[in-house]
Amino acid sequence: MARGKVVIATGIPGVGKTTVCKEAEAQARAEGVKLSVLNYGDVMVEIMEKRGLLVHRDKLRKMDMATQKVLQAEAAAKLAKAVKAAEGHVIIDTHMVVRTPFGYLPGLPKHVLEALKPDLLVLIEADPEEIAARRVKDLEAGERLRDERRIEELREELMFSRMVASACSVLTGAPVAIIKNPAGGQREAGRKLLELIKG
Amino acid sequence: MARGKVVIATGIPGVGKTTVCKEAEAQARAEGVKLSVLNYGDVMVEIMEKRGLLVHRDKLRKMDMATQKVLQAEAAAKLAKAVKAAEGHVIIDTHMVVRTPFGYLPGLPKHVLEALKPDLLVLIEADPEEIAARRVKDLEAGERLRDERRIEELREELMFSRMVASACSVLTGAPVAIIKNPAGGQREAGRKLLELIKG
Amino acid sequence: MARGKVVIATGIPGVGKTTVCKEAEAQARAEGVKLSVLNYGDVMVEIMEKRGLLVHRDKLRKMDMATQKVLQAEAAAKLAKAVKAAEGHVIIDTHMVVRTPFGYLPGLPKHVLEALKPDLLVLIEADPEEIAARRVKDLEAGERLRDERRIEELREELMFSRMVASACSVLTGAPVAIIKNPAGGQREAGRKLLELIKG
Repeated sequence: MARGKVVIATGIPGVGKTTVCKEAEAQARAEGVKLSVLNYGDVMVEIMEKRGLLVHRDKLRKMDMATQKVLQAEAAAKLAKAVKAAEGHVIIDTHMVVRTPFGYLPGLPKHVLEALKPDLLVLIEADPEEIAARRVKDLEAGERLRDERRIEELREELMFSRMVASACSVLTGAPVAIIKNPAGGQREAGRKLLELIKG
Repeated sequence: MARGKVVIATGIPGVGKTTVCKEAEAQARAEGVKLSVLNYGDVMVEIMEKRGLLVHRDKLRKMDMATQKVLQAEAAAKLAKAVKAAEGHVIIDTHMVVRTPFGYLPGLPKHVLEALKPDLLVLIEADPEEIAARRVKDLEAGERLRDERRIEELREELMFSRMVASACSVLTGAPVAIIKNPAGGQREAGRKLLELIKG
Repeated sequence: MARGKVVIATGIPGVGKTTVCKEAEAQARAEGVKLSVLNYGDVMVEIMEKRGLLVHRDKLRKMDMATQKVLQAEAAAKLAKAVKAAEGHVIIDTHMVVRTPFGYLPGLPKHVLEALKPDLLVLIEADPEEIAARRVKDLEAGERLRDERRIEELREELMFSRMVASACSVLTGAPVAIIKNPAGGQREAGRKLLELIKG
């Protein structure tokens, strides 16, 4: 069992991150390349469910800070095991930063990076205007921000993702690749992700 | 003695950081929430005074690099003790970066973060134009920069603060919150800071 | 043998980094200040040549990721020895990030920083428009990007350099200084670099 690469693919909500990861997985399958995708959020939800706590995954980011951090660490340990057990390459689908009520929580703090030992960090990005359009349907009542301010916030979130990715890169030595995912571009974005992994 | 949160509140000169920290402290007192504010610069000045060195705190940033780094480390050790001794929450009022003649000195390098173990990192920000206006009265003779260049420098300083905060966040796992402090907004900014701490 | 400062001088291709380092070296010699410049890329090429691998240094960044990382670590060990052996100050001429086909590779990941223990990190910068003009002659066939997109990419590369430098700064405690190198300004830039080292 030759261990493949561990790639952490990240993106802010509305960027199409999970779709791109699934594209890469499907294309890998078509080419006979061994590749599996693990979803950080799924693992966090699983851990909560085992404890009888039912939380919708979109609400994860609204839980108190201490709980989020504990869940984050436990999920990292579980994912590290799954990575070891995996044949071929592994994509971990997660966030570089999570926008919470108490600020930007780093999705990959030092202890998580040390558990996952990524070979490559990927930022999946889209234009803030497009992300805003994709997110409109996910808006909760009362979240009707003025468009301009919303775009500004998305710009900030994208920027923080890059800054946090840079720090992760220095800690791990792994490069940071940016993949653009414009509307209708998920196949192409998935192909780029797969090429990075194979390359 | 239940230990509260350790919050590092930072901001570049002219942003109103200390005022916001004092606001949060006053509001906490009014609500019966235990909260104390420790000032990093004050501790550095105290250490210098004990050695018979009299330095105005605004001159700290102009001392040679080696001295600043030694002082920084000693102050961190002293603050760590004060944090341990504190009842309730603690705000450490300091800088994310210090603009010195030899570049941006990180206010919270790894060894300082390891001493202080923050739960939350806060960037207090204001528009560069407002900061410039607030700083005018602090200008020294010969510092009369063209307005445009000054604004550009402030923008750079604010950006470096965010970048350095992102690295601190990855190292500690603590989230980074941004609190805006526009003119006349210190009460509201103080309230937000207190809410972050309590939340 | 009093050990001097270890300064890591970085810049993206086309910024004039090596010229500025040589200027600082020449001016130091003229002033009787002991200062030597070590080039990270040269050391990587030397290591490859010893193994009978002939690679043009401009092609280093196109090698596979694993090889680049191994070379990077070996060169760091070699440079660390050279730094220890050096009398006076040392400038290490290298990149903060290397734009590779698999993303931005950090030039100074944690393990390299721990080997080199820099006292100061320097970003040599120029306007993206000027860098683009300087790079035109280095374009390979097929690399004829539209001007606008090229400028955008340079802006991104400069920004990533700053973000990665910020993380390096937090890890080492070393400040980050920015030196501008506009067209015809290399003497002035070299002088600034030397002043930072002496200061």
